Amino acid sequence: MTEKAIQDFYPDDLSHCYGCGRLNEHGHQLKTRWDGDETVSFFEPWPEHIAIPGYVYGGLIASLIDCHGTGTAAAAAYREAGREPGTEPPFRFVTASLNVRYLRPTPMGVELEIRGRVEEIKGRKVVVSATVTADGELCATGEVVAVEMPERMVPGRG
Amino acid sequence: MTEKAIQDFYPDDLSHCYGCGRLNEHGHQLKTRWDGDETVSFFEPWPEHIAIPGYVYGGLIASLIDCHGTGTAAAAAYREAGREPGTEPPFRFVTASLNVRYLRPTPMGVELEIRGRVEEIKGRKVVVSATVTADGELCATGEVVAVEMPERMVPGRG
Repeated sequence: MTEKAIQDFYPDDLSHCYGCGRLNEHGHQLKTRWDGDETVSFFEPWPEHIAIPGYVYGGLIASLIDCHGTGTAAAAAYREAGREPGTEPPFRFVTASLNVRYLRPTPMGVELEIRGRVEEIKGRKVVVSATVTADGELCATGEVVAVEMPERMVPGRG
Repeated sequence: MTEKAIQDFYPDDLSHCYGCGRLNEHGHQLKTRWDGDETVSFFEPWPEHIAIPGYVYGGLIASLIDCHGTGTAAAAAYREAGREPGTEPPFRFVTASLNVRYLRPTPMGVELEIRGRVEEIKGRKVVVSATVTADGELCATGEVVAVEMPERMVPGRG
């Protein structure tokens, strides 16, 4: 597992995402790292992230899979290009589609483990499958189709 | 459009959802109402709900579709049963699966309109399709497969 997360290499002007931006002080600040051929991130839901008392609300699970998916896509794009994260130009992905299957209620009060696997990488598109586990129990699975961010969305370059 | 939202009829112990619980003071407090055969809700993203500056992060869109979907499912279940919301026993749904397609970047600074349509209602399952529109432009579509909450999840009844 590398020390720095992929999100730590995002340029400042692309680091404000509520889900994973290191510069969004109100957000989740998710950190995606390689662990062999998979990626992993961890997040402990906040006390208010309730669905019904005792369980995590589904929107958070979707958000974690989403940001872990685009982070994994960026990390995979650097690997595919044979470049280190942090080298120019930066890779940054947005989500084209997101699927989440909620397999069982996700308990509050434990750190969630989100794992990603690159299923396909082709041109500007990366498909990532993901799992969300709590206390060793698989709670949700998902799939993110991520595409490289259009140049027009990049601040100052649109 | 009825005055009270379906979430206003959820029992207190099922009203803590971060996405739509009226008793979650930190959450989005989404309100789903009938508008003819469709349901509608509105939400203005908070300043911190950024993806990149100027656009809404995808996890919020997913969360809005999710809660609007389960709200629509509950509203539809009352209609199907020929009962008014608020009559006993209450209907409350959880999400089995969620799909979101992000069609274009969703702009910050405008109220989003989320619309739901019941595609299927059968036994304990309701399938809802949804759209998210900003300033008249369709930004995302989604589908929620909602199932009636298992009795064991209901506080005090598990």
